[in-house]
Amino acid sequence: MDFKEKTIRSEYIYKGKIVNLRVDEVELPNGKISTREIVEHGGAVGIVVLFDRKEVLLEKQFRKPLEDELLEIPAGKLENGESPSSGAERELLEETGLTNGKWVKLGGFYSSPGFTNEYLHIFLCEDPDNGEPAPDEDEFIRLVRIKLEDLMSMIFNEEVRDAKTVAGLLMALSYISSKES
Amino acid sequence: MDFKEKTIRSEYIYKGKIVNLRVDEVELPNGKISTREIVEHGGAVGIVVLFDRKEVLLEKQFRKPLEDELLEIPAGKLENGESPSSGAERELLEETGLTNGKWVKLGGFYSSPGFTNEYLHIFLCEDPDNGEPAPDEDEFIRLVRIKLEDLMSMIFNEEVRDAKTVAGLLMALSYISSKES
Repeated sequence: MDFKEKTIRSEYIYKGKIVNLRVDEVELPNGKISTREIVEHGGAVGIVVLFDRKEVLLEKQFRKPLEDELLEIPAGKLENGESPSSGAERELLEETGLTNGKWVKLGGFYSSPGFTNEYLHIFLCEDPDNGEPAPDEDEFIRLVRIKLEDLMSMIFNEEVRDAKTVAGLLMALSYISSKES
Repeated sequence: MDFKEKTIRSEYIYKGKIVNLRVDEVELPNGKISTREIVEHGGAVGIVVLFDRKEVLLEKQFRKPLEDELLEIPAGKLENGESPSSGAERELLEETGLTNGKWVKLGGFYSSPGFTNEYLHIFLCEDPDNGEPAPDEDEFIRLVRIKLEDLMSMIFNEEVRDAKTVAGLLMALSYISSKES
């Protein structure tokens, strides 16, 4: 059985710098009509930076939607036509000044597929070198190093409470433990 | 140093059934003016359902933003004023017919804090009983059971590629291995 929803009408409500908002009228598999609110996003990358397999680098950043600061892995939007791996290297250098390092792609996921097509590509970068950061002029970031043995409790007590960060860190921990065993 | 962004002006572009879109003009910590596109969302729950610590229950569902079907843990929006634990029990029963079971809260996270305040509360429900499903009339869901030993490869090859599902499953696996050791 095919659960595809056929688009009957599609209307852009807003086109912005980070997201567009579109409302689609759709025909459901049972023939009924419904609407879907869709936030279009160009995709992004997130990077788990690991030093000596002992510490991970997180960023503390004010997030306007929450009116609060949040601990996150370095991340950013892909530019037009940019490959995920190039975007990951660019974002890491811009936000942290870190460069080189041993890179591997861990995987990826949709951030909230019920209403947005944003896809996040997740990379691991081990033991990068220091370089010169160049943050966007509307980005204010503090870097924080966290010991691997502290991560689990920070995730389970919601001190680390960002989806890409929780998923990326747990993927990285699984990845390195599979390599070590 | 305080990185808070002061709101100068705030405008609603759209108020919908799942999301609202708001654009804020903000004053950055350096005094410059910028805009933030904010998707307001009422919060949601996701449930990792585990049978006999051997199999997990996932849902296959068409997602209009991606024009594709996706494997996800059971999840849904919180209703007005509803507690996360009540919402989790309600959503699981509606979507799968499963009820009772041994519940524990695993944690929670923002799905994409750069542009939305959506927060997901993640629960583990072990060995629930069968009851009567009652899905929303615009929801079409197929239930799939996956063996725990197959999960890791499905996550790393992006067959499972939904943030709450990746994060929730990896949290659940950590949780049960910490209880077993």
